[in-house]
Amino acid sequence: MNALGLVSMRLCAGLMGRRSAVNPPFLRFSSGMTSSQIDEEVAKLLQLKAQLGGDEGKHVFVLKTAKGTRDYNPKQMAIREKVFSIIISCFKRHGAETIDTPVFELKETLTGKYGEDSKLIYDLKDQGGELLSLRYDLTVPFARYLALNKITNIKRYHIAKVYRRDNPAMTRGRYREFYQCDFDIAGQYDAMIPDAECLKIVYEILNELDLGDFRIKVNDRRILDGMFAVCGVPDEKFRTICSTVDKLDKMAWEDVKKEMVNEKGLSEDVADRIGEYVSMQGGQDLAERLLQDPKLSQNKQAFAGLTDMKLLFSYLELFQVTDKVVFDLSLARGLDYYTGVIYEAILSQTIPASVSTPAEQNGADEAGVSVGSVAGGGRYDGLVGMFDPKGRKVPCVGVSIGIERIFSIMEQKAETSSEKVRTTETQVLVASAQKNLLEERLKLTSQLWNAGIKAEVLYKKNPKLLSQLQHCEETGIPLVAILGEQELKDGVVKLRNVASREEVDVPRADLVDEIKKRTL
Amino acid sequence: MNALGLVSMRLCAGLMGRRSAVNPPFLRFSSGMTSSQIDEEVAKLLQLKAQLGGDEGKHVFVLKTAKGTRDYNPKQMAIREKVFSIIISCFKRHGAETIDTPVFELKETLTGKYGEDSKLIYDLKDQGGELLSLRYDLTVPFARYLALNKITNIKRYHIAKVYRRDNPAMTRGRYREFYQCDFDIAGQYDAMIPDAECLKIVYEILNELDLGDFRIKVNDRRILDGMFAVCGVPDEKFRTICSTVDKLDKMAWEDVKKEMVNEKGLSEDVADRIGEYVSMQGGQDLAERLLQDPKLSQNKQAFAGLTDMKLLFSYLELFQVTDKVVFDLSLARGLDYYTGVIYEAILSQTIPASVSTPAEQNGADEAGVSVGSVAGGGRYDGLVGMFDPKGRKVPCVGVSIGIERIFSIMEQKAETSSEKVRTTETQVLVASAQKNLLEERLKLTSQLWNAGIKAEVLYKKNPKLLSQLQHCEETGIPLVAILGEQELKDGVVKLRNVASREEVDVPRADLVDEIKKRTL
Repeated sequence: MNALGLVSMRLCAGLMGRRSAVNPPFLRFSSGMTSSQIDEEVAKLLQLKAQLGGDEGKHVFVLKTAKGTRDYNPKQMAIREKVFSIIISCFKRHGAETIDTPVFELKETLTGKYGEDSKLIYDLKDQGGELLSLRYDLTVPFARYLALNKITNIKRYHIAKVYRRDNPAMTRGRYREFYQCDFDIAGQYDAMIPDAECLKIVYEILNELDLGDFRIKVNDRRILDGMFAVCGVPDEKFRTICSTVDKLDKMAWEDVKKEMVNEKGLSEDVADRIGEYVSMQGGQDLAERLLQDPKLSQNKQAFAGLTDMKLLFSYLELFQVTDKVVFDLSLARGLDYYTGVIYEAILSQTIPASVSTPAEQNGADEAGVSVGSVAGGGRYDGLVGMFDPKGRKVPCVGVSIGIERIFSIMEQKAETSSEKVRTTETQVLVASAQKNLLEERLKLTSQLWNAGIKAEVLYKKNPKLLSQLQHCEETGIPLVAILGEQELKDGVVKLRNVASREEVDVPRADLVDEIKKRTL
Repeated sequence: MNALGLVSMRLCAGLMGRRSAVNPPFLRFSSGMTSSQIDEEVAKLLQLKAQLGGDEGKHVFVLKTAKGTRDYNPKQMAIREKVFSIIISCFKRHGAETIDTPVFELKETLTGKYGEDSKLIYDLKDQGGELLSLRYDLTVPFARYLALNKITNIKRYHIAKVYRRDNPAMTRGRYREFYQCDFDIAGQYDAMIPDAECLKIVYEILNELDLGDFRIKVNDRRILDGMFAVCGVPDEKFRTICSTVDKLDKMAWEDVKKEMVNEKGLSEDVADRIGEYVSMQGGQDLAERLLQDPKLSQNKQAFAGLTDMKLLFSYLELFQVTDKVVFDLSLARGLDYYTGVIYEAILSQTIPASVSTPAEQNGADEAGVSVGSVAGGGRYDGLVGMFDPKGRKVPCVGVSIGIERIFSIMEQKAETSSEKVRTTETQVLVASAQKNLLEERLKLTSQLWNAGIKAEVLYKKNPKLLSQLQHCEETGIPLVAILGEQELKDGVVKLRNVASREEVDVPRADLVDEIKKRTL
C-alpha cells in the first residue's frame, strides 16, 4: 500500500472512532444488526475510504482484470467460436430458437432461487433507482422471461455470460465471469420425453467436442426427498441435507457424513441410512429394484420419481445413449429450484497435474486434477409460477453446458498440437516490391473488398517486400497480390502462393475469380 | 406501495431522524460532503431501507426487466443475428481478429476517460474486494487489454454489450444495456491509412445493411482545439466547450451559444467566432481553404489536423467513399480520449412519428424522429499510454457501430414486411397419423439427428396429425416425415411437402438424402 492509501486508512479509522465514541444511536442500531448488515456497513466504510482516497490525489494504479475474470485473446476466441459453433449446431438440429435477456435483473428476481449459493450473487451499487444484481445463471432469467411474456411453450437456447462471486480456480476453468450455454424446453408435455431429449443433447455435444470419455449421472429430486423421508430426515432439513449430499463428488463419504451429523444435526444412524442409498448406481434395472424396496416405494414422491426414471431410461434406449448414462442416487445438485429429474455430465479426462496450482490439487489423484462437471441440469416445474402474478405454472426442463472447462481443455489441446490456429480469414495481401505504389495498393485492395475478397494491405507508404511476406507467414495468409511498375503497365498482378512460393501473372480482370478459386 | 413498504419507509425516516438529531459527528462530516457523497449516503439509506423491508416480510414483486433494458425474443434474435453476420463479414473482409474482455473492469480503469459522461457509469456494490464498474464502452477495455498484454500491433473487432445509466428512449433504440460493434487498428503506421480504412468500413456496413441514405461527418480534435485557441477560448475550457459544440446535432446554434456564454462563461464574441467556424462543411476543398486561413494555419495543432484531413480525403478518394463523407467543423464528440480524426455516421431516414412517444419528439421534424448517429469513432493515441506503467504510447484509431438503432429500424422493417421471419432451421417434423407410435417416432428422430438432419418431434404420446401439421405451418418447417403401421411394414416413410401438400413414400435408407436434397 502506498502512502496515500495509508492516509485514507487512517482517515477512515478516525471516522469510525469518532462514530463509535459519540454516536450511541448508531451503535444501538448496530447491536441488532445481522451478519449481512455488518458486511454491508463494512462495505460502505470501504467505499467511503475509496472516495476519500480518490479526493486526496493519485495512488498506484493496478493494471489487471477484475479478480476471477480474464480477457480472451484472438487465438482463444478462435477456439471459443469453434466450440460455440458445434454447440449451436446441435441446439439448432433439435429445433431450438434463441433469446437474450439483460445481464442484470431486479435483485428481487434472483432472491430465493439459489439456496445457499445466493451469497455469491453480484449486486450493483444503489446509484438511485432500482436495486439490481448480475445474473447468476440463465435459468432464472428464462423463467422470468416466460412469466413476463406469458409464454407457455418454447424450446430455446441461450448462450451468455453469468456471474458468481466464487473462489476462482482459473487453471481448472473456474471463473467469476463465465459462459453458460443453456437449452431448455418449457411446456406441458407427456412425461420424460423432453427430459430424454436434453440428455440426448448433452450426449451429442460431448461426443462432437471430442473431449474423451464421459458419464452422465441422473437422479430425481423426488427420489432424493423420498429417500430423506424414509431415512428419517426432518422435512425442514431436506434442502440443506441435499446441499451436503451434493458435495459427494468432491468429498469422501466420511466427511459428508461428518457435516450431516456435526453441522446439520442429523443422528448417526439417519446419516448411515442415507449413506447406503447414495452408494447405489445403475440403470433401468436399479429403478426397477428400488421400486421393489418396500420402504422407498411406499413414499409417494419416491414412487413417482422411480416410475419416471424407468420411463426415462426406456426413451434413452431409443436414443441409444444408455452407454453413458448412470442412475446415481448420490447426485443432488444444490439449486433450490429443481423439482424432478436432475443430471450432470462428468469427463473422465484429467488435467495434467503440472497445469494446476498446489492449492487446487486437494483431492486430486496421481494423474492430475479431475475436470469435473461439464454439463448439468434438470426439471424445474415451479420456477415460472414463482414469477407469475397468478402463480400459473409452466413445467420446464433444461441443460446447461459448462463451457469454460471445455475451453480450458481445448486450449491445452491447441497448445500441445503442432497445427497453428489462424485468427483471421484473410485470403490475400496486396503488396508491392517497389516504392511509391501506396495509392495503387490501396486502390486494388478497395476493389478486392468491393468484390467480397478478404484482403489486407500494410499501412506503410513503402514497406519492404520481405516484411509483407513475413506478415503472411505469421498470420497464415495464403496469397500475395504483388504490384510493380511493369505489372501496372501490363494490366496484370503477380499472384504468389505463400507456401509454395510459385508466382503467376494474372490479368486484373481475372484476379477476383483466381483468388476465389485458390482459396475455396 | 403496499403496507409493508410504508412501514419500512417510516422505519427509514425514523432512523434518519435519530441519526440527525443525536449524531453530530455524522452531521459535521456531512457538512463537508460533496454532492456525490450525499448521493452515496442517500443510496446507502435506500439500501438499508430495502434490507429492513426484506427482513420484515414480503412486499409486492414487480415482474419486469431493469429500467432501460429489454429481452430479445426469438424473432428479434433472428434479425440481430442477420445484422451481426453482415457486420462480422465486413470486419473479417478487412482482416480483423476478435477478442473479448470482462463485462466489468476495476473502477479505476474507467476513471477519467469519459469526461462529463462519467456520471453514467454503473458501479458494482462493494461486497468486499475490488471496486468494480460495468464497462461503458469497448474502447477503454481495449486500451487496457493492449497495455496489460504489451500488444503494440493489432487489428481487432469486439462485439459486446456496454452499460450507461442514461435516460432510456427505447423506441428510438436507446437503452441502458446495448451492443457495441467496435473495429480498431492499433499500431504505429503511416498517417491516415488506418483512419481511411475505418471510414471505408463504416461505408461498407451501412451500404450492406440497406438502411437508406447516410452521411459520415469527419473532423479532427486538433482542428477543434486550434479553432478554440484562435477564437480565444482559454486552454482549460477546451474540453467543456467541446462537449457543448457536440450538442449541435440536437440543439440549435442559438441554444449552444447560450450554454457557452451563460454556463461555460465565454464572452459573446468568442462564441460568435466559434459559430462562424462550426457552420462550415465541405471536403478536401474545405481543408485546403482552411489551410489558407491566416489565423488557423498559424496554429500548430490546426495546421497538423488540416494537413492530415487533406491526406485522408485523398485516400477516401481511392476507396471511392467521398460521396458520403463530409468534413464538418461542428462535429465534436464528447469523449475525452480522442486526439486526432473523429467521425460520426448519420442516417437520413427517420422513424415514423407514430412509433415514438411525445416525450421523445423534441426537435423532431414533421416526418418523424431522426434516428441520429449510427456509428462513430476516431483516433485516440494517448489512451493506451494512460494504462502503461511506463507511459508507452500505442496509437489507435477505431469505429463503433451503434447497433441498437439499426436493430430498431430492421425490426420495424420486418413488422411491415409480409415475409415471415423463421426463428428455427428445422428441416423436418417426424409425425404419425396413428396412435401408439411414440417409440417409432423417437427412434426415427434420433436417427435423423445422428445423420445431421435438423428434426423435431412433438412431445406427446398420441398427437393429432392436424396439430403436427399446424406446428409446421406456424414455424415454417418445410417437410413432415409421417410414420404409420403400413409404412413401418413397408420399410418406408411418407414424406410430405408442407407447402404443396404433396406426399411421396421414401425408403428408410434414402430418407436422409431425400431430406437433404429437398432442403438445400
